[in-house]
Amino acid sequence: MQFLSDNAAAVHPAVWEALKAADAPDSPYDGDALSLALDERFSTVFERPCTALWVATGTAANCLALASMVPPHGGVVCHEEAHIEVDEGGAPGFYLHGAKLMLARGERAKLTPAAIRAVIDPIRDDVHQVQAHAISITQASEYGCSYRPSEIAEIAGLASDRGLRLHVDGARFANAVAYLGCAPGEAAGPADALSFGCIKNGAMNAEAIVFFDPALAEVARYRRKRAGHLQSKGRFLAAQLHAMLADDLWLANARHANGAAQEIAAACGERLMHPVEANELFVRCSASERETLRGRGFGFYDWGDGAARFVTAWNTREDDARSLAQAIADL
Amino acid sequence: MQFLSDNAAAVHPAVWEALKAADAPDSPYDGDALSLALDERFSTVFERPCTALWVATGTAANCLALASMVPPHGGVVCHEEAHIEVDEGGAPGFYLHGAKLMLARGERAKLTPAAIRAVIDPIRDDVHQVQAHAISITQASEYGCSYRPSEIAEIAGLASDRGLRLHVDGARFANAVAYLGCAPGEAAGPADALSFGCIKNGAMNAEAIVFFDPALAEVARYRRKRAGHLQSKGRFLAAQLHAMLADDLWLANARHANGAAQEIAAACGERLMHPVEANELFVRCSASERETLRGRGFGFYDWGDGAARFVTAWNTREDDARSLAQAIADL
Amino acid sequence: MQFLSDNAAAVHPAVWEALKAADAPDSPYDGDALSLALDERFSTVFERPCTALWVATGTAANCLALASMVPPHGGVVCHEEAHIEVDEGGAPGFYLHGAKLMLARGERAKLTPAAIRAVIDPIRDDVHQVQAHAISITQASEYGCSYRPSEIAEIAGLASDRGLRLHVDGARFANAVAYLGCAPGEAAGPADALSFGCIKNGAMNAEAIVFFDPALAEVARYRRKRAGHLQSKGRFLAAQLHAMLADDLWLANARHANGAAQEIAAACGERLMHPVEANELFVRCSASERETLRGRGFGFYDWGDGAARFVTAWNTREDDARSLAQAIADL
Amino acid sequence: MQFLSDNAAAVHPAVWEALKAADAPDSPYDGDALSLALDERFSTVFERPCTALWVATGTAANCLALASMVPPHGGVVCHEEAHIEVDEGGAPGFYLHGAKLMLARGERAKLTPAAIRAVIDPIRDDVHQVQAHAISITQASEYGCSYRPSEIAEIAGLASDRGLRLHVDGARFANAVAYLGCAPGEAAGPADALSFGCIKNGAMNAEAIVFFDPALAEVARYRRKRAGHLQSKGRFLAAQLHAMLADDLWLANARHANGAAQEIAAACGERLMHPVEANELFVRCSASERETLRGRGFGFYDWGDGAARFVTAWNTREDDARSLAQAIADL
Repeated sequence: MQFLSDNAAAVHPAVWEALKAADAPDSPYDGDALSLALDERFSTVFERPCTALWVATGTAANCLALASMVPPHGGVVCHEEAHIEVDEGGAPGFYLHGAKLMLARGERAKLTPAAIRAVIDPIRDDVHQVQAHAISITQASEYGCSYRPSEIAEIAGLASDRGLRLHVDGARFANAVAYLGCAPGEAAGPADALSFGCIKNGAMNAEAIVFFDPALAEVARYRRKRAGHLQSKGRFLAAQLHAMLADDLWLANARHANGAAQEIAAACGERLMHPVEANELFVRCSASERETLRGRGFGFYDWGDGAARFVTAWNTREDDARSLAQAIADL
Repeated sequence: MQFLSDNAAAVHPAVWEALKAADAPDSPYDGDALSLALDERFSTVFERPCTALWVATGTAANCLALASMVPPHGGVVCHEEAHIEVDEGGAPGFYLHGAKLMLARGERAKLTPAAIRAVIDPIRDDVHQVQAHAISITQASEYGCSYRPSEIAEIAGLASDRGLRLHVDGARFANAVAYLGCAPGEAAGPADALSFGCIKNGAMNAEAIVFFDPALAEVARYRRKRAGHLQSKGRFLAAQLHAMLADDLWLANARHANGAAQEIAAACGERLMHPVEANELFVRCSASERETLRGRGFGFYDWGDGAARFVTAWNTREDDARSLAQAIADL
Repeated sequence: MQFLSDNAAAVHPAVWEALKAADAPDSPYDGDALSLALDERFSTVFERPCTALWVATGTAANCLALASMVPPHGGVVCHEEAHIEVDEGGAPGFYLHGAKLMLARGERAKLTPAAIRAVIDPIRDDVHQVQAHAISITQASEYGCSYRPSEIAEIAGLASDRGLRLHVDGARFANAVAYLGCAPGEAAGPADALSFGCIKNGAMNAEAIVFFDPALAEVARYRRKRAGHLQSKGRFLAAQLHAMLADDLWLANARHANGAAQEIAAACGERLMHPVEANELFVRCSASERETLRGRGFGFYDWGDGAARFVTAWNTREDDARSLAQAIADL
Repeated sequence: MQFLSDNAAAVHPAVWEALKAADAPDSPYDGDALSLALDERFSTVFERPCTALWVATGTAANCLALASMVPPHGGVVCHEEAHIEVDEGGAPGFYLHGAKLMLARGERAKLTPAAIRAVIDPIRDDVHQVQAHAISITQASEYGCSYRPSEIAEIAGLASDRGLRLHVDGARFANAVAYLGCAPGEAAGPADALSFGCIKNGAMNAEAIVFFDPALAEVARYRRKRAGHLQSKGRFLAAQLHAMLADDLWLANARHANGAAQEIAAACGERLMHPVEANELFVRCSASERETLRGRGFGFYDWGDGAARFVTAWNTREDDARSLAQAIADL
């Protein structure tokens, strides 16, 4: 019963079908019919004109999006626990040619206008200090907490006031939308680009970078090739994205994962370190409690000395979630 | 009847099977059993210790290999028509942080010791000029011509004399090995790293970087993550590589493609611009002749004003090859 | 009697005076009165609005100018013998983050519209090939040949048609202007930025980057700091530039050097490989002839096997030039 | 009466003399006699073999030193208030190709082994997180506090244990040595490279990078050229360094500055935020007190809302220091 992560979960049957269906001759790279249809598909989802590029990883999605917004001498404000800062092996430094991540603090790994201002207001307006060019937020956050549309709107307002671009890392965007119950466009807010995650949600190896400003996409097209991310059989990536979006599979999968997380959350009570607003749970428990849980067959990561992280996925079995909830209640 | 390229060809059934079989829970990234088994698998193929990393594109393979060998202030000698120079969107400049490609000339897009010396000998040994740190050759070359083991040995000898690393771009390495009929290790020669192509030969989106010096692989591991190429469900890439290597499928596929190319070549006679030593044909023919061929249903690229390029693949139908041979003979 | 190069020549007395005069308290970096006065000074020289930044080397000037024009995924067309390609240790690769130098050929190390088109016309308009974003020419060229205003206008016209920026490497711009006898603005043509050389012409270690588009200068300001080229006692660089421009010292110095070159040229006759349009002479002569010249006390570089390069400077003594002319005539 | 900074102070007469004396013909770049003599000169100062390269700014010195030690995918541990983090316009990101600055905390802007461990111990040993490759400390620190030799030895011990390189930013190294009263080699500790500052201490625009590992210097030579920092009239930079070292002028100048600082410090009492161990004073005082001081003719920077920073220099007049001391005492 694995709750380690959603990042290596199985591939959804509908994705398999789409992959097989894509195994017909078509143009290489992103000239195939499936790739060409992505802009329209995402424009429908977000109810505004989008340009969508597939890539194989969330790291590539985040970094290509940011590289289209931020010059090498600029900076990006992000949370100090953001994935781009902590877990991407320095990829932003590579893709942005040494641009700086400017680390803000904030509860639940979420940024607020105040937290962002605390980073950018002290920057002297001179060439000796790196100037911010963009803000990157994560929807849902590293702690599985979702920004309300109004929260993003406030951040976007600040970004606009200061001439900053706004990027959303949506590795678990589906879970946020499913939790918020709002339109996808609202959950993304007035961002310039969104890393639209699918891999954690049932795809094999396809994410989308959704650009709401087509000029950024033009730059990103070149950068994607330059980063070795333009696959020659791109139709197999496009197919995965279409499969995820068809009939709102992405939301159904996310709802399933969120539902399992809620079931477990209900058993955690005061143990919860953060509200459960996606598919991750951060649960206070001692080393011996964790040992007990592992003894009962549950896989998960320690989260420091006094907590554990559980992640549900699109294919988490309801029985397993129920069992974990029971096991936590039993502690 | 497509002879445009092998780069978007269908995925081989054995690869599909392996992909499906890989859809079981396992560790993320490259911690799964399939990924962990790659070193041994490739060591068997090359009859010496190898460290093998999967990546999703040939561009990533080439650039990560080179980035492990060449510092940002160094240079790489390659053919002026090499893929890394002409068709990778400047990826080497990105991955190597501005290191320089030093362009050599040579018949059939192949390098020779003399051609390499013509590039490096005039370089003054001072800081004003970029110093070469590596040589990159392509096996088979951009014109479908294969290096004999003795030719590579000579180049490797020069590399060794001058303290240069040797990289082999093997996007069509299988076709070269199949053509040469030698051991894979001989076709790679005493290189430091080989980009082992599979995508043009029946895989979906997996190539291997085969390092013969494990120290280079250690660097490349970090660089792969940093480039956003460490997929979380890496088992699906490893599975493709295993499928290609199992029962020498890679060689069977290449032999098929090469055989089709030879059948067509036999009809070309004096029209051939280069010997056919892999699965590509460069055929002199006029615009009207090309029109005739297209009228008969053949797809291919023009190669300048007076020639056409035909590429066969693992799944080229024998009938189609025969038809093309006939059509060319009929011109 | 040194004719090796002008790059290490003595510092002009007027520059010394200006340096000493600058040794009074003032603001650090480029906030001092002398630095602040540069824009106006150069605007007067070029008869149009300029933004001028000092830097310590021609390499920094060229690379900061280009980095303000060309994104990392772009390219710069330059002559295959241009200083930025041959003699700057790969600095463009560093400053431009891996952007590509696209090498054109041309007589006398000069570019022509045809030579540029021969480079850029074959570039496919797709992401697989690096797209040109700028052209860089050298005034006077590596062979001491000066572009006529009409020649630059043609190149600028092509640049404009293709949406390319135009940079002029003016390491010996003064010599070109002195030779052409035209207004400085004409000798620079409708460029976007000019590396205005002073070090070869009597300064100690100050060059100017003259931007004719202020938006580029804004980027370059940040990049200069980021490259460690914003000196804290910048007034000493600004002082050198003012000294060079005051009373057209730069042109007087260049006229002197050019005059010495002409005197020598007159003795060379058929030996000249290129017309002498600045302060460099490329003179056919055998190894034994070079030995003879060295035996008579002349210092110079061999230029391949069958020629020698002589460079005059602002402080070349007339006697020395006359002696060299005589010695060449005596060969 | 300026106490704003030492960074734009006048040039010492001995430096002027050396500059003038260097205005004789010699080889370009660093092939002149003065440049060639630097290794020996610094080896004498540090009582061990050194390789010394001149550069024009402290930023270039720091970044070239670090770039010789840290690969693009690595990291450097430094204090969160270190100059390389706060005031170099992102130059480390540029020179180190996106390597990461890993920010440690510590009193007085000084690092301790514990502070460094707090940064590096939590880093997982995997490719998802940037691994530290070097430590950079500042002697004297941003708050004018000097590391004791034993403190550096402890840090160097940790560095050695963890396989990390050690860099010392010595923009005010002379002031630290003068304060500590120890041998220069002790004040640098067992570092791999030292940025040896001269500009704040009487030079015009020359610093030295002193390498204690010659292999690093070899890399840095290429990187210096590549960064446009190899001046063609390098003898003028070498001359400044020789002038500073001759007869221990660097230490005499630093002692003067330190002495002035001590005189002022004696008047500050409880107002001092940090011990005065070099030539900087951080003095608690209210806005109205600062107004009073400015009204009496003193120039200095505010340090936040409740403090002021005063910096003395080699040419601070004793009267001025005494006046400032008196003025502070009068508050």
